[in-house]
Amino acid sequence: MIEANLIGFSTSAEGDSFTTGYNPITTETLPGKFPGATNGEISLAVDLATSAFVEFSKISGAKKATFLNAIADEIMNLGDKLVQRCCAESGLPEARIKGERGRTVGQLQMFGNLLDEGSWLEATIDTAQLDRSPVPKPDIRRMLVPMGPVAVFAASNFPLAFSTAGGDTASALAGGNPVIVKAHGAHPGTSALVGSAIVKAAQKTGMPDGIFSLLHGSGSIVGQSLIKNKNIKAAGFTGSQTAGRILYDLANQRKNPIPFFAEMGSINPVLLLPSALNGQTAKLLAGSITMGVGQFCTNPGLILAVESDSLKTFMENLGESLSSIDGGVMLSDRIANSFNSELESALNQKGITIEAQAELSNEPNRAQPTLASVSGETFLDNPKLAEEIFGPYSLVVKCQNKSELNSILQKLDGQLTGSVIGDESEFSSFKLAIDLMKNKVGRIIFNGVPTGVEVCPSMQHGGPYPASSDSRFTSVGTAAIKRFVRPVAYQTWPDEQLTDELKNQNPLNIWRLVDNQWTKDSI
Amino acid sequence: MIEANLIGFSTSAEGDSFTTGYNPITTETLPGKFPGATNGEISLAVDLATSAFVEFSKISGAKKATFLNAIADEIMNLGDKLVQRCCAESGLPEARIKGERGRTVGQLQMFGNLLDEGSWLEATIDTAQLDRSPVPKPDIRRMLVPMGPVAVFAASNFPLAFSTAGGDTASALAGGNPVIVKAHGAHPGTSALVGSAIVKAAQKTGMPDGIFSLLHGSGSIVGQSLIKNKNIKAAGFTGSQTAGRILYDLANQRKNPIPFFAEMGSINPVLLLPSALNGQTAKLLAGSITMGVGQFCTNPGLILAVESDSLKTFMENLGESLSSIDGGVMLSDRIANSFNSELESALNQKGITIEAQAELSNEPNRAQPTLASVSGETFLDNPKLAEEIFGPYSLVVKCQNKSELNSILQKLDGQLTGSVIGDESEFSSFKLAIDLMKNKVGRIIFNGVPTGVEVCPSMQHGGPYPASSDSRFTSVGTAAIKRFVRPVAYQTWPDEQLTDELKNQNPLNIWRLVDNQWTKDSI
Repeated sequence: MIEANLIGFSTSAEGDSFTTGYNPITTETLPGKFPGATNGEISLAVDLATSAFVEFSKISGAKKATFLNAIADEIMNLGDKLVQRCCAESGLPEARIKGERGRTVGQLQMFGNLLDEGSWLEATIDTAQLDRSPVPKPDIRRMLVPMGPVAVFAASNFPLAFSTAGGDTASALAGGNPVIVKAHGAHPGTSALVGSAIVKAAQKTGMPDGIFSLLHGSGSIVGQSLIKNKNIKAAGFTGSQTAGRILYDLANQRKNPIPFFAEMGSINPVLLLPSALNGQTAKLLAGSITMGVGQFCTNPGLILAVESDSLKTFMENLGESLSSIDGGVMLSDRIANSFNSELESALNQKGITIEAQAELSNEPNRAQPTLASVSGETFLDNPKLAEEIFGPYSLVVKCQNKSELNSILQKLDGQLTGSVIGDESEFSSFKLAIDLMKNKVGRIIFNGVPTGVEVCPSMQHGGPYPASSDSRFTSVGTAAIKRFVRPVAYQTWPDEQLTDELKNQNPLNIWRLVDNQWTKDSI
Repeated sequence: MIEANLIGFSTSAEGDSFTTGYNPITTETLPGKFPGATNGEISLAVDLATSAFVEFSKISGAKKATFLNAIADEIMNLGDKLVQRCCAESGLPEARIKGERGRTVGQLQMFGNLLDEGSWLEATIDTAQLDRSPVPKPDIRRMLVPMGPVAVFAASNFPLAFSTAGGDTASALAGGNPVIVKAHGAHPGTSALVGSAIVKAAQKTGMPDGIFSLLHGSGSIVGQSLIKNKNIKAAGFTGSQTAGRILYDLANQRKNPIPFFAEMGSINPVLLLPSALNGQTAKLLAGSITMGVGQFCTNPGLILAVESDSLKTFMENLGESLSSIDGGVMLSDRIANSFNSELESALNQKGITIEAQAELSNEPNRAQPTLASVSGETFLDNPKLAEEIFGPYSLVVKCQNKSELNSILQKLDGQLTGSVIGDESEFSSFKLAIDLMKNKVGRIIFNGVPTGVEVCPSMQHGGPYPASSDSRFTSVGTAAIKRFVRPVAYQTWPDEQLTDELKNQNPLNIWRLVDNQWTKDSI
């Protein structure tokens, strides 16, 4: 575990303020002091990335795939050391961390496969028509190319899958961009271990020095300096709406603004149709609300239903299921403290009823799963009730009728997900509500809970603001790579000087749109 | 020609300040007084668009195609009335306006064809694996959906192709979004005529009231109000860097920021390799610099070459060709005045040599085609020399050697295009320069000039900032539609409730990525 910043293939520890690991279960400080990056170190990392970009941007997809697969191998090679440190720094159980490691490695390999195949580059060719009148049509060929050094902000709640070698890093590297990771302060040791695995993989596969750096330190100093650096060309972030918005604003206020993809707050509304008001749904929802101690961005924080006697019984069932679940330890003292104070503030709002609450454990940093309810009218009147509370909490909104339900859906902010639970036969009588929900979310689910984000080409993890800063992109799945690439068109460019993806012969045998037809044929 | 704002299918003229057309050739004020939209009218247009969105977002691709084709027909039906008004308001010759009308109609039809086919929606399906361990894999299906009401800012230099029914409007409507156009003050009559054609087409093809509105008025009042309106979900802009940046900042400073695609300044560097320094290149470049009185965003404003005796002869040739070309009348008095003052300021910079200048006509609003030169060192020292001057002007930078050339390319801002003129055999000795240029542009051209933007799937019209506000998108070609759509994933959604694009049977017979394979097969 290197107690320094990783700047390309070198280490550097010039700073005099330090991050340390904290075990939320034992409240012990963990071994290792990780020095915050100085301005000089930040500049060095970005300069090195800028130089490395010239070479890295031209490396073939197959070679980049070898690199990504090597990162996956080196992460597995870290063995139990990584699992133990990650469990200690996050309070998460071993099974979860091993599962998350599997997902992290799987993501790297998924992008490796994408690069090996190559059709993702959207190669588009319009051949020349020299006899066209009044002017000849030139040969134009377009494909996606990398943008330059990308800053990645690691997340607290996925110390592996959304952190140092997580989805943002994997997709940015896959796109051909050097990456500089701002380590999350809650798991510096995990970050250092994974960072060293990336460096080892880069060296083994002959990647240029500087395509990866890992910087420790605070978001307000190191994070903001990175975003302001003129050679950073894009950024990926997962975290709170407050932090995300500060960085988003900085990215846009630059002389040369850059794309800043932030995945932020979401309360993931669940719409219960009348037939869903049963014990099975209650159990399903209680599990989803408390999964990972409620610390998922897809946590169902809002349950919408039209008032009825069945709803009363349902809430009792849900409350019973929820309060029987052990809250578990939260990721850090900071997160546990925020949850408690945000929960207290929410429960003190006018018109809120506490429906059920699990017992509070005496152990430190524990969460108390909580279910509350409110009338539709009160919910509409108080925007605070629609704010995300990061932890095992959900609010049932009892709507007087469908019209009130529709007003609520119309007023909701953008969300990562929306779920509809019920029977297909009920769709027609809730048509408008479902349509309104579709316009607010990135993913809409039928008869399922929002937690559990599949990593695949069809996933959309990102929604209208504030769920994400740009609903046109996803941070999970193969399409996440599109955040960090841009198209370039080559006009009348000599065949020999084109990259393989655009050459007449199509040597990589990829799908291309040639004269408006999808084909793998050569020209 | 309706002297009012078009708000959906109605007209409204509540404002008491007016825009009038101006003929830059005769300096006459043209008939027609177009009232600026009031705040009430702006809100009304946006509210109507928001209501229309619910229906419009669900209309089939085929039906939207009928609408786009009907707009094309109605524009042609305006006949000579449109051509005459447009020529009068822009000072552009009839042949150019007829050509531009062809392009405008062609763009609408191109998006019509795209919608008729449907593969552009990126339908992506991952089928369920219910026996997967440890958890079953759900069925997920993703496609692009519209975002909501889009504001479009018309451009001065393409009164048809980048204005009321131009590329932004066509691509936003094609994507399924209602559009509100802010008419350009330099051609209000043209805007009114084209706007009425759109309304007629919408009515004829049964589109909902509110999917199109046309507002007159100033950018600083009407334009800014539109961008600040919370129900506007995206915007497209073509114009100056100053105006673009103001609106971009407003779009990003909103509580809920929206994508704002601005296509702004570019000086479109042309790199002359030694073999290109001949009379033929001089003629080609002189034509490109003065085409459309230099009022194209792809105008070649910067010519880069390494110093040599051939370069001296070349500049004489280029100067001779350029100064023999009649500058022509500029689009408006405002543009002619800006060109003259910006040119004067540029020519007064230290170290600038005027190489050639056409004679100045006594007629009003005329431009004087001008060629200047400067040393590489001076250019590097003075960022003002890299600013766009909108008109028939170009600056030759005489680089001492390749290393200075590379420094200049490294320092350049983002550009729409870059051109390399020479022989393929020279590529290897200018490898770094060409690579550096590629990283700065959206389109790179070999042995051609940047003017003349082909409308096709492979076109990339957009580059790193400030050429455009987001280099990941284009404002010309079929891919322009991607600016105004976002992906939505449907998880375990009943087949019957899915739109045709995602149904098992693939009734539209479109290309889809099913379990990571491109296919038109059903599931």
